[in-house]
Amino acid sequence: MINIAILGFGVVGSGVAEVISKNSKELAARLDGEELNIKYILDKRTFPDHPLGSRVTDDIDKIINDEDVFLVIETMGGLHPAYDFSKKALLAGKSVITSNKEVVASCGAELLSIARSNNIGYLFEASVGGGIPIIRPMWQCLAANKIIRIAGILNGTCNYILTKMEKEKTDFETALKEAQELGYAERNPSADVEGMDTCRKISILTSLAFGKHVYPEKIQCEGITDITYDDILFARNRGYAIKLLGTSKMASDGKVYVLTAPFLVSEDNEIAGVNDVYNGISVEGNVVGDVLFCGRGAGSLPTASAVMADVLDVIRDCRKTIGWKNEEADFLGDISNNVTDFYIRTKADENKIKEVFGNVKVEKSGDNSVFFAGKTSQKEIEEKIAKLGFDTVKIRVLD
Amino acid sequence: MINIAILGFGVVGSGVAEVISKNSKELAARLDGEELNIKYILDKRTFPDHPLGSRVTDDIDKIINDEDVFLVIETMGGLHPAYDFSKKALLAGKSVITSNKEVVASCGAELLSIARSNNIGYLFEASVGGGIPIIRPMWQCLAANKIIRIAGILNGTCNYILTKMEKEKTDFETALKEAQELGYAERNPSADVEGMDTCRKISILTSLAFGKHVYPEKIQCEGITDITYDDILFARNRGYAIKLLGTSKMASDGKVYVLTAPFLVSEDNEIAGVNDVYNGISVEGNVVGDVLFCGRGAGSLPTASAVMADVLDVIRDCRKTIGWKNEEADFLGDISNNVTDFYIRTKADENKIKEVFGNVKVEKSGDNSVFFAGKTSQKEIEEKIAKLGFDTVKIRVLD
Repeated sequence: MINIAILGFGVVGSGVAEVISKNSKELAARLDGEELNIKYILDKRTFPDHPLGSRVTDDIDKIINDEDVFLVIETMGGLHPAYDFSKKALLAGKSVITSNKEVVASCGAELLSIARSNNIGYLFEASVGGGIPIIRPMWQCLAANKIIRIAGILNGTCNYILTKMEKEKTDFETALKEAQELGYAERNPSADVEGMDTCRKISILTSLAFGKHVYPEKIQCEGITDITYDDILFARNRGYAIKLLGTSKMASDGKVYVLTAPFLVSEDNEIAGVNDVYNGISVEGNVVGDVLFCGRGAGSLPTASAVMADVLDVIRDCRKTIGWKNEEADFLGDISNNVTDFYIRTKADENKIKEVFGNVKVEKSGDNSVFFAGKTSQKEIEEKIAKLGFDTVKIRVLD
Repeated sequence: MINIAILGFGVVGSGVAEVISKNSKELAARLDGEELNIKYILDKRTFPDHPLGSRVTDDIDKIINDEDVFLVIETMGGLHPAYDFSKKALLAGKSVITSNKEVVASCGAELLSIARSNNIGYLFEASVGGGIPIIRPMWQCLAANKIIRIAGILNGTCNYILTKMEKEKTDFETALKEAQELGYAERNPSADVEGMDTCRKISILTSLAFGKHVYPEKIQCEGITDITYDDILFARNRGYAIKLLGTSKMASDGKVYVLTAPFLVSEDNEIAGVNDVYNGISVEGNVVGDVLFCGRGAGSLPTASAVMADVLDVIRDCRKTIGWKNEEADFLGDISNNVTDFYIRTKADENKIKEVFGNVKVEKSGDNSVFFAGKTSQKEIEEKIAKLGFDTVKIRVLD
């Protein structure tokens, strides 16, 4: 019998308990018949009617000090006390498995280093893409590649809203409200719609791909609150979908450019077809070319599926070396030098636009002017938009 | 220094050598600085001008008997002597990594069992989907799931031909010829277009998902040679793409139904958008839901990327337990009882059709009648087609 503890009995934590009970046969088959036993559940609440109600405790030290507990699953969310408890567990020699992207993005290097020193695991497959296999495939299956580029739809809420806006010809606020009613968006949706969640996830994928911790606060982050239905329509009529992406790419100057922002994505690109609450992550390696991973990026059971993959790996002692180091990320490029095509929507008139942007093809969209600015650095586009002097929105076109 | 041998210096074998040289830094980083050395290349030909020309030998025993050779990469293709050499190497205690789907599909259980007894690895990530991570994600990342269904575009040649037929409004023969000219199809294309290649790959994925060897000759296999442009057009106008799929599903009777055949795939299904030479594999688990893996399913470097992932795993001693057993696959259902909707194209007239199929909606397509037969077992549809007594083609609709 292998004793484990779950920290936090919310959506993901209870999903983990459900999978352990539901698929006990499959799990035992991978553990040479050994059974998993949830010895403790850490939560401030009590669950008197739950079959595991008697396992619930609010005392982290009881778990940490119990030598029978082989590993700890952290599904609390939020930075504190999730980080503190994880560190405590690792220092006590217990492997930690987490679905908590906030802790991994902000403190991953430190926790990975403690895990390495103690010859145990700190694993986080569930922190990006819910149940979609992405951390392990990137780390193991693409290990012989130099990663050149990552572009991912990493937030199901935003993807649902953008899909909804297009399907129902509606604006951002209406689509957000509907997403909230269906439980796809939180009452306070800012971490999703302003891009912070995507930013944490691209921080994790970038750190994994390049081996050094890239902290989320170093990543420029734009959300989808400015996107209108007319933007989506304009893009679609020209063969593009609008998607919120986390992107990072290794440029020819040897620097890595990381960005969270809405993009126009060509319909020829597979991720343009990833809709609703689905996530899709495209990874380009220098030998494998493009590979794409898709699926539900959140939810109780899908996320629990990823957590349990890590649990099995820790028990089978298979992945102690995964991760990255906390060296200075000196390969990080200045994103304001990054060059892409831009779609521009502005209240400025055609003459003013041509004065600033030269001979671009300007069209009307409602009472706005819209056009593609052509390949421009972010710095230059911002200077030009300042010169325009009107209410103006820019959206990048994915290369 | 870790000494390895490559059996077969063709497309994949030379790709492996290229990746080892091209990405030596990335590989060394995963091997704590240890270097890989290609000590032998087995081939009947000589390569006097190649930098590794001096490593080429035609004597397998020289490789098997060299205790310095830690592992063997088999990229020969074909059943013999690839199977015999692999077995020899495993019996001599050397791990074997292969891209050879024919050997894995026909002799996997035996070779896996030898590897298990000798506590070494027989790994085959490159045997399905080229460089797309699929074997390892299914085995490790979805390990906590009961697999419910697999549906995969597993043959890039067929997918290229079907995409070409639609784009250029052309027939099968013309698209095949073009694929041959571009090197996407072999001079003798029958293993691809008649479905045998897909059949081998779904045999491997099904064995992996359900833990027992399902041999390709037990899998019903239909190719794409009967598909016309009019079929594709009819399907598209109703929201479907036509794709050659390898499928297996766990039905409610506890049996697994495996099939290789062209299917109408709804455009809502992500794999309908996987075009050209790309492969796409959808896997449904009972907790994760649907996940999709896409990428180039063949080619020298992509396939070498998958081979090298296995090489790194063997060296890091991480995956000895992967695979399945050679028990009788008594869970295999009789595919003729399998029920799907069918698209039917026939020379029979509407009266005759309604006499046999009842009140279906019959339309004209060229000089054929076409219609959907509704949910029918394969057995029943074959009986009905026999009653029609005319030249008739059936294509399944994917649920």
